[in-house]
Amino acid sequence: MSSILKIGIAGLGTVGLGVLKILSSHSELITSRSGRSIELKAISARSKSKNRGVSLDDLAWESNIIDLAKRSDIDVFIELIGGDDDPAKEAVETALKSGKHVITANKALLAKHGQELAELAEKNNVSLKFEAAVAGGIPAIKTLTESLAGNKINKIMGVMNGTCNYILTRMENSNLAYETVFNEAQKLGYLEADPTLDVGGIDAGHKLAILTSIAFGTQIDFAAVDTQGIELISVQDIEQTREMGYRIKLLGVSQITDEGLEQRMQPCLVSATSPIGQLENAMNMIIFDGDNSGQVILRGAGAGEGPTSSAVMSDIIDIARGNKVPTFGQSATSLIKMNPVFTSTPAAYYIRTKLKDSPGVLAKMANALGNNGISIDRMRQTQHADVAAPVVIVTHKTLPETLNKALKEVLKTGVTLEPPVALRIEDV
Amino acid sequence: MSSILKIGIAGLGTVGLGVLKILSSHSELITSRSGRSIELKAISARSKSKNRGVSLDDLAWESNIIDLAKRSDIDVFIELIGGDDDPAKEAVETALKSGKHVITANKALLAKHGQELAELAEKNNVSLKFEAAVAGGIPAIKTLTESLAGNKINKIMGVMNGTCNYILTRMENSNLAYETVFNEAQKLGYLEADPTLDVGGIDAGHKLAILTSIAFGTQIDFAAVDTQGIELISVQDIEQTREMGYRIKLLGVSQITDEGLEQRMQPCLVSATSPIGQLENAMNMIIFDGDNSGQVILRGAGAGEGPTSSAVMSDIIDIARGNKVPTFGQSATSLIKMNPVFTSTPAAYYIRTKLKDSPGVLAKMANALGNNGISIDRMRQTQHADVAAPVVIVTHKTLPETLNKALKEVLKTGVTLEPPVALRIEDV
Repeated sequence: MSSILKIGIAGLGTVGLGVLKILSSHSELITSRSGRSIELKAISARSKSKNRGVSLDDLAWESNIIDLAKRSDIDVFIELIGGDDDPAKEAVETALKSGKHVITANKALLAKHGQELAELAEKNNVSLKFEAAVAGGIPAIKTLTESLAGNKINKIMGVMNGTCNYILTRMENSNLAYETVFNEAQKLGYLEADPTLDVGGIDAGHKLAILTSIAFGTQIDFAAVDTQGIELISVQDIEQTREMGYRIKLLGVSQITDEGLEQRMQPCLVSATSPIGQLENAMNMIIFDGDNSGQVILRGAGAGEGPTSSAVMSDIIDIARGNKVPTFGQSATSLIKMNPVFTSTPAAYYIRTKLKDSPGVLAKMANALGNNGISIDRMRQTQHADVAAPVVIVTHKTLPETLNKALKEVLKTGVTLEPPVALRIEDV
Repeated sequence: MSSILKIGIAGLGTVGLGVLKILSSHSELITSRSGRSIELKAISARSKSKNRGVSLDDLAWESNIIDLAKRSDIDVFIELIGGDDDPAKEAVETALKSGKHVITANKALLAKHGQELAELAEKNNVSLKFEAAVAGGIPAIKTLTESLAGNKINKIMGVMNGTCNYILTRMENSNLAYETVFNEAQKLGYLEADPTLDVGGIDAGHKLAILTSIAFGTQIDFAAVDTQGIELISVQDIEQTREMGYRIKLLGVSQITDEGLEQRMQPCLVSATSPIGQLENAMNMIIFDGDNSGQVILRGAGAGEGPTSSAVMSDIIDIARGNKVPTFGQSATSLIKMNPVFTSTPAAYYIRTKLKDSPGVLAKMANALGNNGISIDRMRQTQHADVAAPVVIVTHKTLPETLNKALKEVLKTGVTLEPPVALRIEDV
């Protein structure tokens, strides 16, 4: 255990460079805490000549990451190139098969291939670790797999995409339209190359699927995550909900109900005074509700060089200390497939639409809801200078499938000028 | 590693019984996550005959906890009897010397003897673990020793005594006097047998001293914690500070400054909109500020059967998995003694006193502050029907020793009818 732990890093983007810098600047601290030295031996990245502001002279360079994954002089392979398939997948597989521990920040890869990779790690008796894949600097994975291991988890909730939270907060605080803030965020480099991954809730959905697997002992099932993005949220929605004491958040929820496993990532209304309601800008928050622990709430930066590298370091130091936890908290072969269900718990809903400006339209809409047993808690028809009358309705608790059926009926009445937008009001 | 992990529990109070219940109710879950069975073999408590609502028939009973600590058929000794000296200390020492891992929830013992116990654990190559000793169900110890191990910690802050936070919140929400709420809390069983441990900030100070040791690699030094309780907080303080946008919290802070190691546990004003300002009732919150991670904020229940037992289970499962972390995050013999310093960073202060109702008294008080270079940001003389004029002053930033000197001068002027109460305004 006192021998040197040798590392190879594939990918020298923000996170890779961050890890490299910490290993160099905090060498003494880390050795003292790990009980042994940790040494970066070899790297691989797209361009060898690119000026990264740090010297790579002492490090072996591999132009092919598969060669890096195979190197006999490394104990740990750190995958930071991203992408949900090859070459990341092949590199991780190669490293695991070569008996190396693997650390990755790649939630897309885990969401898609986590089960087979976990089985492969187990077969080769090595660790596959990914603290950095979920919520950046927040210790979400360790808290769930280790700190809460004595709990049956009742529910997971969280804001897991900082960019979406930034966009929603900025819209609220500056009264700017979604498109304006989206463009701003893109200019600032806050969005993935394919922005749908962020604003469509896919990236956050990947993270939720990972946490779900650990919490409930189930095989990762990202396809079953009911995912909605934030693209349809308007400044009016934000204003109206704020006046009612809510905030809009891209909220992930997963839980086991009588019907099966429910996983959803969708914009929801949450109480403005709740910890999630108060979460501003690019921050992330994860709430684990354990049957013994009660709500354990973690908050911090969900992205960025420092926080994400800090999470990778946590995995490195675990390995250096010789500590092992099964990839998803229990043997990969013991993870079960659980029947996925669409949101199966009732909630109040916020509905926003525009009605034609003619007599009886509101009654027709209210009737369509009432016919489906949905009662109205609050209704507000805001001022309008044109033919469209913006209407906001808050329902009493109802099941989402009932709501969807009712909204289809509303559409059929022909009174709406735009399809109603419905947002769930979640108790957090 | 697939053999059974055998446990002995000393103390069957709230937490001991909680652990016993979890081991029994979650047996399958825990085996699956630990990779092996965990079996409670023997117990020790004050009364064997007491009806605890659970059957202890299958368990060996030791009337002397030292005998329990020595038993050859246990691998882990769990100390839940409390007290900062013998018999808890002797029992823990005996267990460590007998080559058993020890888990304890005893912050007082650790604050007083943590260094020698950690050295003893290390010498005997066993674990001494105490997740339950700090902030109940919140994974404060694991987050600091493991998740943030790649960080230089800049600062720790936190609300670590739920009872004090309950009292302050209740005073605020119900406009009740400190004494009234204190008596209420005592009746509800929220206070320790010696309530000074809670309201005097000592219990919270113990926890801060433990976190400080891990964060900064220093030997535990509870005696150096600058500790003030909440006994002097009045309803008027709470009202006045609320109107100014603050909340009063018993706040722990530790950090290394140019002068040395600063540890303090004192009632402070914090922004009402900050996560700590929004923390209500018996909740705890710990904020770790790492140089790479940024602020990582943990929130949850700081006490109670479920949360505290959940923390003990986390330690048990770590041991069952064969994972080891040095007691205070690095080798006990490498922990250094660091020069303790009194609060050495400037801050704004809230000052409340009563002045005699005669001309020029306010000027005399202001002069005493001004003579010491303390400038006044806000001053408020509230309405009064008697000879005493309640005065509230908020200063600009100043050093606490300067403030103390100035307040002594204020006293000398003879204008005050009660000694001024000064509360630090902390940026959180």
